[in-house]
Amino acid sequence: MDYQIALIPGDGIGREVIPAGVKVLEVLAKEFQFGLQLTEFPFSCAYYRQHGEMMPADGLEQLRPFQAILLGAVGAPNVADHVSLWGLLLPIRRQFEQYVNLRPVRLLNGISSPLAGRTAADIDFLVVRENTEGEYSDIGGRLFTGTDREVVVQESVFTRKGVDRVIRFACETAMNRPARHLTSATKSNGIRFTMPYWDERFRAVTADYPDLRCDQFHIDILTAHFVQHPDWFDVVVGSNLFGDILSDLGPAVAGGIGVAPSANLNVEREFPSMFEPVHGSAPDIAGQGVANPIATFWSIQMMLDFLGEAPAGAALMAAVEKVTGDGFLTRDLGGSETTDSFTERVIGSLS
Amino acid sequence: MDYQIALIPGDGIGREVIPAGVKVLEVLAKEFQFGLQLTEFPFSCAYYRQHGEMMPADGLEQLRPFQAILLGAVGAPNVADHVSLWGLLLPIRRQFEQYVNLRPVRLLNGISSPLAGRTAADIDFLVVRENTEGEYSDIGGRLFTGTDREVVVQESVFTRKGVDRVIRFACETAMNRPARHLTSATKSNGIRFTMPYWDERFRAVTADYPDLRCDQFHIDILTAHFVQHPDWFDVVVGSNLFGDILSDLGPAVAGGIGVAPSANLNVEREFPSMFEPVHGSAPDIAGQGVANPIATFWSIQMMLDFLGEAPAGAALMAAVEKVTGDGFLTRDLGGSETTDSFTERVIGSLS
Ligand SMILES: CC(C)[C@H](C(=O)O)[C@@H](O)C(=O)O
Ligand SMILES: CC(C)[C@H](C(=O)O)[C@@H](O)C(=O)O
Repeated sequence: MDYQIALIPGDGIGREVIPAGVKVLEVLAKEFQFGLQLTEFPFSCAYYRQHGEMMPADGLEQLRPFQAILLGAVGAPNVADHVSLWGLLLPIRRQFEQYVNLRPVRLLNGISSPLAGRTAADIDFLVVRENTEGEYSDIGGRLFTGTDREVVVQESVFTRKGVDRVIRFACETAMNRPARHLTSATKSNGIRFTMPYWDERFRAVTADYPDLRCDQFHIDILTAHFVQHPDWFDVVVGSNLFGDILSDLGPAVAGGIGVAPSANLNVEREFPSMFEPVHGSAPDIAGQGVANPIATFWSIQMMLDFLGEAPAGAALMAAVEKVTGDGFLTRDLGGSETTDSFTERVIGSLS
Repeated sequence: MDYQIALIPGDGIGREVIPAGVKVLEVLAKEFQFGLQLTEFPFSCAYYRQHGEMMPADGLEQLRPFQAILLGAVGAPNVADHVSLWGLLLPIRRQFEQYVNLRPVRLLNGISSPLAGRTAADIDFLVVRENTEGEYSDIGGRLFTGTDREVVVQESVFTRKGVDRVIRFACETAMNRPARHLTSATKSNGIRFTMPYWDERFRAVTADYPDLRCDQFHIDILTAHFVQHPDWFDVVVGSNLFGDILSDLGPAVAGGIGVAPSANLNVEREFPSMFEPVHGSAPDIAGQGVANPIATFWSIQMMLDFLGEAPAGAALMAAVEKVTGDGFLTRDLGGSETTDSFTERVIGSLS
């Protein structure tokens, strides 16, 4: 098979981890004998500074033919978030109906949890985040601007279609895991319209899966449980905002966001899916060559899995865990490996 | 001085921890020579089952003359949250303009953190939560009910008055602490109208405090930092929802919500303020006499502080930490003390 993959290194450390990922991908393609057509797109804050927009007007059209997008990170200190993120990242997620943001949390070999006494046996779950609607809407506005009476409103929008499909995906995913356990993140005791609706649809959709063990927690106590009882969780489904929070908190108990991968999935494959590390462009360390490429490698494993090259993905993660297990870690994990040296070690362990 | 205090034990373990609190309060009143007029109100889910409402129509009027309200917990498994919470807890917070929800997080003597190697020196911060507006609004609704086209919307409402006053309180509070450090919880990269407004007002209000060290984090990475770097924080200010999340997560790194206190403050004292443990009614353990009363005792300390009886409050917490420091803990903390036996030990340590 030949895979068409769009690369968007983006900004900051995105420009360091994506090249590392490409190196690894090329080794895997040789070893596992699949074809790779990598096309790089310059869409980024640098592009914005030159062209006044993050990507050309037909940017999404350019990306559409690809089977997958591998994105580094977007954002720069002097570019407003509503420009960088709402001009690139969020439109890709939405326009390509990447309605599942899948974020695994697992304690890798050789990485220790900040939680006392917790081992890999305790930390192994998946956050399934709704990725197109909910709290991230662009509906809202301001009244009485600049006065004491100023009022700002923001609409959250939940739809039957949007809620059901992500919960259904979470059910299917949980059914394929040994524990068959699905947890819903809610806040229906405080957020009076959308969250009771989320609960109602959670009950309705999960009713089709009698073999699934289902429970729900309000987001406040759920974050506490992530710290006190990470072993309670298997698959956790949440709205756009709650999933966002849980998928940074989860990695924090498993070594930090230098490690955390994500897959933005258009499950039906009508549009390209996007794979990206959870971390941002990290301007504070960009250019130093010290970024941790694990989050990108793990995202590549998710991409390979999605493309049908699961053995190659598994080999990649085995190589990563061989290296971390041998004690070679980047700076964010307390080690002294650079992006390059770590990548070379992974490639060395691959072959 | 004579203090008029309204007691609302409420439901579940609220009916166990409030009586424990009353015992302690009465001992303190004798020892520190202040007068106490305690008036108990039956407002609860039990009351609802008899009267069809959580409190009488003039319930708030009945509470208004009091200087403080001490509340246990509200909620029962067979009563909908929108009945129990929106019929009692949330109206009190709102109608009495208790716009600050103050929630200290500190590792008490003898209690260990689930975070490896973290001691009391690392965990000592305050969450200041907006408590009247924001994401907890009752504006919203549903369209195309029961069909595939179903849409549910929910409005978040942020006002200049609401945002400024809680940030200003946080600034004043931080200025009175040695570290003079204030962190804002935001999500302006994803939530496009209200959160950039929050950031804007944070900049405007903190400009009046040049001696304050200010920073901000998006809520997703902030939850990660609470786990990875609890020592980074001093005072953390957040919206109603973000403050709610952080004030369950904070206690999780400091021994759990069995310990966590809160003060719902009407800073100007035009209306009564309310003091309550962060935990809920805990129907799973209610009636067993094993609830941890520390959250209530600590809330009482906050109440005494607010009333002007700081020495009595300090004595109470010293007694609590004497008992925990001697290794006497309730079940939630891995010990075998009951609500009663723990309370007796605290009283024993008081005199
Ligand atoms: C019970 C619920 C509505 C409440 C809240 O979210 O405010 C509780 O979680 C709290 O923190 O006091
Ligand atoms: C950058 C930001 C808009 C984004 C999000 O909140 O979705 C990020 O935090 C993520 O998790 O991918």
